[in-house]
Amino acid sequence: MPTVHDLDTPSILIDAARAEANIARAQAHADRNGLKLRPHIKTHKLPYWAKKQVAAGAVGITCQKIGEAEVMADAGLSDIFLPYNILGRAKLERLKALHGRVTLSMTADSTDTLEGLAATFTDAGHPLQVLVECDTGMGRCGVQTADEALALARLIDKAGGLAFGGLMTYPAAGRATEAEAWLANAKQTLAASGLACERISSGGTPDMWRSSDASVVTEYRPGTYIYLDRYQVAKGVGTLNDCALTVLSTVVSHPTPTRAILDAGSKALSSDTLGLKDFGELLGAPDARVTGLSEEHGTVTLSGDAKLRIGERVRVVPDHCCVVTNLFNEVNLIDGETVLETLPVAARGLMA
Amino acid sequence: MPTVHDLDTPSILIDAARAEANIARAQAHADRNGLKLRPHIKTHKLPYWAKKQVAAGAVGITCQKIGEAEVMADAGLSDIFLPYNILGRAKLERLKALHGRVTLSMTADSTDTLEGLAATFTDAGHPLQVLVECDTGMGRCGVQTADEALALARLIDKAGGLAFGGLMTYPAAGRATEAEAWLANAKQTLAASGLACERISSGGTPDMWRSSDASVVTEYRPGTYIYLDRYQVAKGVGTLNDCALTVLSTVVSHPTPTRAILDAGSKALSSDTLGLKDFGELLGAPDARVTGLSEEHGTVTLSGDAKLRIGERVRVVPDHCCVVTNLFNEVNLIDGETVLETLPVAARGLMA
Repeated sequence: MPTVHDLDTPSILIDAARAEANIARAQAHADRNGLKLRPHIKTHKLPYWAKKQVAAGAVGITCQKIGEAEVMADAGLSDIFLPYNILGRAKLERLKALHGRVTLSMTADSTDTLEGLAATFTDAGHPLQVLVECDTGMGRCGVQTADEALALARLIDKAGGLAFGGLMTYPAAGRATEAEAWLANAKQTLAASGLACERISSGGTPDMWRSSDASVVTEYRPGTYIYLDRYQVAKGVGTLNDCALTVLSTVVSHPTPTRAILDAGSKALSSDTLGLKDFGELLGAPDARVTGLSEEHGTVTLSGDAKLRIGERVRVVPDHCCVVTNLFNEVNLIDGETVLETLPVAARGLMA
Repeated sequence: MPTVHDLDTPSILIDAARAEANIARAQAHADRNGLKLRPHIKTHKLPYWAKKQVAAGAVGITCQKIGEAEVMADAGLSDIFLPYNILGRAKLERLKALHGRVTLSMTADSTDTLEGLAATFTDAGHPLQVLVECDTGMGRCGVQTADEALALARLIDKAGGLAFGGLMTYPAAGRATEAEAWLANAKQTLAASGLACERISSGGTPDMWRSSDASVVTEYRPGTYIYLDRYQVAKGVGTLNDCALTVLSTVVSHPTPTRAILDAGSKALSSDTLGLKDFGELLGAPDARVTGLSEEHGTVTLSGDAKLRIGERVRVVPDHCCVVTNLFNEVNLIDGETVLETLPVAARGLMA
């Protein structure tokens, strides 16, 4: 079997055992707390892991783009949630085809989106489940009040080919309590009008770990938990030893004693730091900081006893693993130094 | 012929006439000032444009990865500069194969890199041109002093299968004067030792426009000049009307009167702002600012008279066009609203 030494750089390495352990740990937490897991595949974009997540007990998967859902449906995934406002005839036609082959659920946060869905889905015998997206503090998509949620839920409920599926939110970081209160209030408002919220879906890996069966949330859509990254470590979700994804890189230059240059730049590590200082963590070299990126170069600033030599290979834990996955055409599953399998990132770069 | 209305979103649109005009204008400037142009293909990653650049008068092209150079060689480009330290047997073997089919030149900034090149290229009858990379203020790769440049130039000159090709730099933004002084001094130091610098290669679109025949630089490697972007406009290189690349996007949500959400997030526009405020410019809507991105959502903040409606399509000029190109599998060449051709981004995502 090939080893990591046979791989050219930069390459993505996925420690398969760590990813499996991360899946199992989250599923066990969800099971203990009576929560359903519906992992977001944006982090890995691989049918391989989506199937493992479902086999471990996930009720289905979450995709953000129809193209991603199509790839997953082709691979045999059968229950897909697409929490996105879908507009326009081309996308609605693809959505309809998808509804014919998998158990599909969707979101909407406006009458415009609902009108398109209602005009496309008209079969009362096989209605499309539509959840109302709620802005519980994130400031992105979503209705602003419980009354708005009620108005949309009523429209869904009345549309012949749609079925009201519940509420969905992506909570603001660190504001799970506010999100919880928002959703509880909306649930009550809808219940008072005879609309039951059997499914309340929330997102975010850190919040999932703080949730319990006391929550109004019935389902979580964690993405990053499978690989983890420097941001998740900063949030206390795990340690660097739990991070499954690293970028294998070569030191290509060492112009001064305190500066080394990697062949992994923003094209490999992305510019998305999620607000962290530095652009990744060099494993085994805490005094070697990734302080700058241009497209094809990563600048490492050395202090203390940190030493790197030209030609040396290093492994970098990125700040945000999801966006790194989207930059590579393939990933390498590893066990120690052995490369178990090289997988094409099947749902990579799908825009529509 | 299809029109932009037939495209799904998000998609890249390239105004073909603008790109051609940008090519012609830069080439005319170079010709007037006795400079050679060697465009960096990282911006477009397309043989289509590389051929147009050479047809307009460029002496060859610049690639940053061997994979990019291989794609361009396959498409018939015959003179390729790879200003990157290449290390490791796999890459050196590919480099050797490339040297057998195109006019190839390289850079090195260390004895380590030179040792690999010297061991791989041994044919004195067909030597590999190697330039010395110089750090003239950028703080990335490159030798730090003229004496270091001299030492490496001598090693190249003595290696049987290598030929000293001159000096190369990527200057720090806004510090072309310092770079010029650095290079002039190094050229003189080498000349005093009998080593002529017939080629001195510099980079960067803004600097190219400030250069003249009084410069020690003989060759420029501009990348962004072909498409331009919001950063180049901020630097005064052109206006928004010269920007050839836009991202076509749909308004998918409008949760509050002052907030609209686009289906173009960091997966389409990238998180790389090059230090600019905001993540792109909405054409025709100066009061609609792209104030935030998550992976699949772009947040637009509306003020003044700015109005957007759900389902409406908008065009966004990104902050940094090169990194946007790398995110899409294809681009659409347009003339007005007509889609002339849809091209796969052949050299996209090539890491090694």
